[in-house]
Amino acid sequence: MRHAIELAHRGPSRGVNPQVGCVILDPDGTILAEGWHRGAGTAHAETDALSHLAPGAATGATAVVTLEPCNHTGRTGPCAQALLDAGVSRVVYAVDDPGHHSSGGAERLRQAGVDVVPGVLRSAGETLLGSWLVAARLNRPFVIAKWAQSFDGRAAATDGSSQWVTGPDARADVHARRAAADAIGVGTGTVLADDPALTARTASGSLYPAQPIPVVFGHREVPESAALRTHPRPVVRVTGDDLAADLAGLRERGIRSLFLEGGPTLISRFIALGLVDEYLIYLAPMLLGGERTALTDIGVGSISDARRLAVDGVHTLGDDLLVIAHPKGHA
Amino acid sequence: MRHAIELAHRGPSRGVNPQVGCVILDPDGTILAEGWHRGAGTAHAETDALSHLAPGAATGATAVVTLEPCNHTGRTGPCAQALLDAGVSRVVYAVDDPGHHSSGGAERLRQAGVDVVPGVLRSAGETLLGSWLVAARLNRPFVIAKWAQSFDGRAAATDGSSQWVTGPDARADVHARRAAADAIGVGTGTVLADDPALTARTASGSLYPAQPIPVVFGHREVPESAALRTHPRPVVRVTGDDLAADLAGLRERGIRSLFLEGGPTLISRFIALGLVDEYLIYLAPMLLGGERTALTDIGVGSISDARRLAVDGVHTLGDDLLVIAHPKGHA
Repeated sequence: MRHAIELAHRGPSRGVNPQVGCVILDPDGTILAEGWHRGAGTAHAETDALSHLAPGAATGATAVVTLEPCNHTGRTGPCAQALLDAGVSRVVYAVDDPGHHSSGGAERLRQAGVDVVPGVLRSAGETLLGSWLVAARLNRPFVIAKWAQSFDGRAAATDGSSQWVTGPDARADVHARRAAADAIGVGTGTVLADDPALTARTASGSLYPAQPIPVVFGHREVPESAALRTHPRPVVRVTGDDLAADLAGLRERGIRSLFLEGGPTLISRFIALGLVDEYLIYLAPMLLGGERTALTDIGVGSISDARRLAVDGVHTLGDDLLVIAHPKGHA
Repeated sequence: MRHAIELAHRGPSRGVNPQVGCVILDPDGTILAEGWHRGAGTAHAETDALSHLAPGAATGATAVVTLEPCNHTGRTGPCAQALLDAGVSRVVYAVDDPGHHSSGGAERLRQAGVDVVPGVLRSAGETLLGSWLVAARLNRPFVIAKWAQSFDGRAAATDGSSQWVTGPDARADVHARRAAADAIGVGTGTVLADDPALTARTASGSLYPAQPIPVVFGHREVPESAALRTHPRPVVRVTGDDLAADLAGLRERGIRSLFLEGGPTLISRFIALGLVDEYLIYLAPMLLGGERTALTDIGVGSISDARRLAVDGVHTLGDDLLVIAHPKGHA
């Protein structure tokens, strides 16, 4: 399985499909073939591995796969059937397929008399799948909410000035994380107020090779002169009226992670709806007081309704702190 | 000097007078006598040390003192003169006397022909003096502002509920720090809203041996039934109209450190006036949103006026975080 996971890593870590690896072993444990998935529209890991074998060569073999073989005919045929056709007698896999359409492969194999062993190195398999798995289980992108605030929770001073609350190390960290996300989201209010470029830039100002798709929530028009219009990737507009529906739409476009940057109203709406999977709170060592809080109303009336977080880490970035957390009770 | 600092630690760490130690050495470096200060009204360290010597025994000797010998006749005579009378020819000290009335001892000794060496192990000497030195330099108690907040800077949920924002480890930490302070301060609003006992209690609920003096800021009456009235030490009332004057008054009572607990309005007024020397921000891993911020207006109009802090440490207390900081630019 470890070898299958290694193979999986050769595939793309973005887009609508997961990274999957497959190893075909003969009854003695000798590797007959290897395969991995190279992205949407290409062969799944199992069929990629089987393609290297002569007909009949996999009879009685064991297939080790990082993800439950699919039971779904999309742009490729169902892998469960391909394994049956090849004569595989044993299938070992790490993570159950969370897909609504694609699951059931294990059951189909079992009914055909194949010895199926699920959950081998499940935890490592889940780590491999990362945001894809969350996106598949929730049918929406994995949402990372990021904001910068003073220690006392303000995003700006009374007059609205906020440049720069956090220092260069914190900003560099944000850009590296932007580059790792499929999309970056802001509301129209932020576009109009701050005119952000929403690109992922290195310390020298050059663009990272990978750029997140800019997603703007809301109805107001993005000005012709907006910095956003020079983004290397076309802007995706969503209404923001129904955030859950917006997110489902983004996932259909193959967006499996959304880096949500603001402003306070949009982030607070995501939090109120329980749509945030990871929190990145950049804390600048200053006090501002006043009314310009980084979050507004998040629908918490009483302390018992508080959005409780589990802290994954507290990091020092120059003079700033970064708290990484996720909703308590989530994995 | 290290030995003098050790001696100083034998004296009391509270009250109006500092911890001071003194060692008298003969020209070969042999210790002739030791002394330390035992509290207000008792002999200063220098005279304590000299008292162990026969007349003339200190002629040509070196006095090593943690604090510049005083030049002030209070309940005891000036130490500078006592050292001159004893025939000491060299005085080595760590920290300059910050007192308005008592300083000038080094100059007096120098003018009398004594070899004076200031600033030896100054940093260690300042650490020894701690809040006394700050109180003496500023003519007010060292002010520690403590508050508990959610990550997003709220002290309570929209309905006012706040018990318990932070967990038992954070509360135990607060009580230990209360016990180390000379006084604990709150506004009348907090007394009326929360009815705090303002005692320093151990985890089992028993009182620490040392209890801070409860100080209530404001004009409103403390109810007869208030928990505060059962405090082992009598409540000190100050108007809160002129916080700097209130603090000067507290220092005259021998209070050299004030643990300021709230509420938001009182703490924000202290911050706005630049009267906070140390910040203890307890951060609970939750988001609350809404209007009940832990700080209100602190007089910051623009980001350039932000109250910038230097972080001394970030500590984990159960699920909570404690950020300890001081105003940037202060020692």
